Amino acid sequence: VTTRGGIRVRTTDGEFETRLRGRLMVDAAAHNGNPDLGDGTEIRRARLAWTGRIFHDWSFQLDYDFADGGKLRDSFVSYEGFEDIRLRTGLMEIPFQLQYRTSSSNSQLIERSLLGAFGGDRYIGVMGDIKKQHWSFAAGAFGDTATRKNPINDEGWGLGSRLTVAPINSDGRLLHFGTAVMYRNVDKDASGQQRVVRFSEQPEARVAGRPIVDTGDISNSRSFTRYGAETAVIRGPFSAQAEYVYTAVSRSSASNLGFDGWHLQAGYFLTNDARVYERGEFGAVTPKHQVGQGGIGAWELTLRYSSLDLSDRDIIGGEMDLFNVGVNWFPVPMLRFSANYIDVIKVKDGPNDGQKPRVFLVRSQWAF
Amino acid sequence: VTTRGGIRVRTTDGEFETRLRGRLMVDAAAHNGNPDLGDGTEIRRARLAWTGRIFHDWSFQLDYDFADGGKLRDSFVSYEGFEDIRLRTGLMEIPFQLQYRTSSSNSQLIERSLLGAFGGDRYIGVMGDIKKQHWSFAAGAFGDTATRKNPINDEGWGLGSRLTVAPINSDGRLLHFGTAVMYRNVDKDASGQQRVVRFSEQPEARVAGRPIVDTGDISNSRSFTRYGAETAVIRGPFSAQAEYVYTAVSRSSASNLGFDGWHLQAGYFLTNDARVYERGEFGAVTPKHQVGQGGIGAWELTLRYSSLDLSDRDIIGGEMDLFNVGVNWFPVPMLRFSANYIDVIKVKDGPNDGQKPRVFLVRSQWAF
Amino acid sequence: VTTRGGIRVRTTDGEFETRLRGRLMVDAAAHNGNPDLGDGTEIRRARLAWTGRIFHDWSFQLDYDFADGGKLRDSFVSYEGFEDIRLRTGLMEIPFQLQYRTSSSNSQLIERSLLGAFGGDRYIGVMGDIKKQHWSFAAGAFGDTATRKNPINDEGWGLGSRLTVAPINSDGRLLHFGTAVMYRNVDKDASGQQRVVRFSEQPEARVAGRPIVDTGDISNSRSFTRYGAETAVIRGPFSAQAEYVYTAVSRSSASNLGFDGWHLQAGYFLTNDARVYERGEFGAVTPKHQVGQGGIGAWELTLRYSSLDLSDRDIIGGEMDLFNVGVNWFPVPMLRFSANYIDVIKVKDGPNDGQKPRVFLVRSQWAF
Repeated sequence: VTTRGGIRVRTTDGEFETRLRGRLMVDAAAHNGNPDLGDGTEIRRARLAWTGRIFHDWSFQLDYDFADGGKLRDSFVSYEGFEDIRLRTGLMEIPFQLQYRTSSSNSQLIERSLLGAFGGDRYIGVMGDIKKQHWSFAAGAFGDTATRKNPINDEGWGLGSRLTVAPINSDGRLLHFGTAVMYRNVDKDASGQQRVVRFSEQPEARVAGRPIVDTGDISNSRSFTRYGAETAVIRGPFSAQAEYVYTAVSRSSASNLGFDGWHLQAGYFLTNDARVYERGEFGAVTPKHQVGQGGIGAWELTLRYSSLDLSDRDIIGGEMDLFNVGVNWFPVPMLRFSANYIDVIKVKDGPNDGQKPRVFLVRSQWAF
Repeated sequence: VTTRGGIRVRTTDGEFETRLRGRLMVDAAAHNGNPDLGDGTEIRRARLAWTGRIFHDWSFQLDYDFADGGKLRDSFVSYEGFEDIRLRTGLMEIPFQLQYRTSSSNSQLIERSLLGAFGGDRYIGVMGDIKKQHWSFAAGAFGDTATRKNPINDEGWGLGSRLTVAPINSDGRLLHFGTAVMYRNVDKDASGQQRVVRFSEQPEARVAGRPIVDTGDISNSRSFTRYGAETAVIRGPFSAQAEYVYTAVSRSSASNLGFDGWHLQAGYFLTNDARVYERGEFGAVTPKHQVGQGGIGAWELTLRYSSLDLSDRDIIGGEMDLFNVGVNWFPVPMLRFSANYIDVIKVKDGPNDGQKPRVFLVRSQWAF
Repeated sequence: VTTRGGIRVRTTDGEFETRLRGRLMVDAAAHNGNPDLGDGTEIRRARLAWTGRIFHDWSFQLDYDFADGGKLRDSFVSYEGFEDIRLRTGLMEIPFQLQYRTSSSNSQLIERSLLGAFGGDRYIGVMGDIKKQHWSFAAGAFGDTATRKNPINDEGWGLGSRLTVAPINSDGRLLHFGTAVMYRNVDKDASGQQRVVRFSEQPEARVAGRPIVDTGDISNSRSFTRYGAETAVIRGPFSAQAEYVYTAVSRSSASNLGFDGWHLQAGYFLTNDARVYERGEFGAVTPKHQVGQGGIGAWELTLRYSSLDLSDRDIIGGEMDLFNVGVNWFPVPMLRFSANYIDVIKVKDGPNDGQKPRVFLVRSQWAF
């Protein structure tokens, strides 16, 4: 039995283990510019996860987010009897985008980039992955979301896979490349007549809850396919990540559509600390000199440029570009306080054409 | 402190104990025949239960299902200071039907039978039960469901009791008989004018979420009374269960109604395993030769015939008969993978008269 | 690792601690008089809280109420590195009213008094407090509730503080005084045109869920300010509490409004037990001679008079006065069974002018 915030109980023979994990994120935001979004506060995530191992080779998880009325998160049963390989069935996130494979607790800026328009989907399905020090691969087949029920029409389904390589990964140095593709067959709506997809995105803040670019419902959508490319580097206190995603929408009675976006972000620790990379994703920062033991924790300056284009042919969702600059403070492991200043420098076309909102966003977080 | 999936903490003097228990069921279904229901996936249950003992004689429970938006499950305070007797107050399932007294984790086929139309109700109330090796008895008085509020009219209330005897219950042999009766006074609807009951049922699968037989709202219903009879046998790897339920509905301005149904189900373990009976209900299967220790787990073939008649007088809900054949695999204790093929052989009258849907249903489950 | 109902895991150096806490309250009520409210049952609270300490100086909490569809409760991160001082950010109750600073598990009568019309608000914000044996002080700044999102308009915000002194606090004797003030700027509604506040209250019972006095929406409300005064005494088995609250509502295009209320309540233990006071609030009763060890637990008789006036100028919400008399039985620590008889002796004006409902209310509770 151990605790470092959460609870971990392990049998002495290692056959069984059970853990309680959780995270709480408290956000506040002030806005100016235009549109002048609503200032306010939000419990962004309030999660409790129960995970463990039974009879050595099997593991389980139940994860729930109590924020915003409650949503089931990654919950599954897993077979891990083959070395470094996991076979899972249940509800899980598709293997797509480095920033989504990295836990929200460990994201470099407060929110993920504008590429959130193209990621973070969770479906019920089966997935296998293998994780090695210098490469990882994941592939899965998925049904629909946890809450979708279709009395008459079949639910949507999809496929997805991601491959990463890390030719350099040791001694505080990382060079990482990754590529991913996912296909999704769209389910029919309630009337069974029409298939719809929609992409939209907020300005890397969720407090106001208002999308700035938005395609609206794209009718007669048969399916969409997303292609992603990603890279990351760590060198001591410096780290950087870049991603590009292209989304192709296939329509039954109109031309196909293409949307895309990218971001480039970097961080630099003022203290003698570093980002942590764990087999295809970023992990939790552990400050070397923590508060209460003579240190000031870990301090990181962060910067991101994001660009998203949701306009193509007859669908004018708009283009948005923004700068996001911030600072992270990790006083002790498992705690994080962050501030971001988001400056939307361009919104072209779409529902908020020509507007330039600015957001000052702060977050307090515990996670373990 | 022990863990076998869940956590159990017990004081050395046995005065206090606390346990975390849970279960996750992940379902997928494909349908054909007619009506052609929607293929798809579902998180059927995602439950976390906290239960324990305080000062030796008292126990508590809090149980929640995170699936489908969240529902409170059996949650109560209990006095257990008399041997084999429990006195409870809180939210609980009424004592009715062997298949509902048996945990959903331990049901022989994936879903319970068509008698689900007449069972599984949970109300706030008080209940006492006594459980002996060769008999058990439970009786309770109940108010309404956990979420019902009536600003003006009184809520519904009911009574229920169940008696079981097991003249043979030892050395892998069981002969069990049971009988139960429950009465329910129906609450008024929001306008206070009319009392309504409704019975409906899906084809032993919940993924599509569409009832096949359905009485619709039966207006002017004053109360209903259900009578149940049940029997079960275990002989080594073979087991069988049968139940019959009759439901009488009393109406204020029309003749009374009667609906009924029954099922007969059996299972046979291909491996040297057996169903477990625990004082009036079925428990969890523990494979003798588990995967990872040279075994193949426990394999059970299962078969059920269900029949339900929701038509009487002016209420034509329809009749449904079906075969359900399946296989269960228990690789290790606490895990279960099951497949069922459900063939609806008759639907007479009602909203889907003459239709014959077929369902292939699979479930992955952890429970402890 | 210890359990006394809940789980507590503490590292031997005291640096880390994690606890699971919970409470379940099961209510039933019968009504007569007029209006004749709906008799029935309710799960009043079903809470699971996870709280703990990390790296000695920091603490965390996640608290959720599973009753009534689920609501997030006090959830925050806290710095406690200064002696007796806590600095918190997250979702929390404002520091206002002794009866709300006291946990619902430890309230003297089943529900809090009619002053509930003016208290119990939870907002996201920051708060600091200091608690000493003979005084306590808390002050905070708050945004809006956990679920509020405003795409366009700013959310509401507020300030609050409370000061208590206890010149006598030792050897089973207490003399406590307190005062508090809170200000709240009201957010705009969805259309951004109008600001609304509303006060209403039920008759110290929640089962029927129907307010007896109710101001309705007070339009054009800019802000409101509440002033509270409180006192409490304990002398051996006897205890008493009294509170007064005045609420001033500022309107943009009409005269300001003033509402107020007060209560006086007392309890007397028939057994050799006493109420517990802990630095500005009441704690849990621990019976000296518990059931199962030759005792009969702790028995307390309780009485309260409450008065609430929600009528001023053009807003006629009504006045209500009531007597509430009850008994508490604590058979062992952490369990409580209570009965209250509530006699509304006056309702003047408002939606239920001249009516006199009576309520018999019982509660079964475990809490730790």
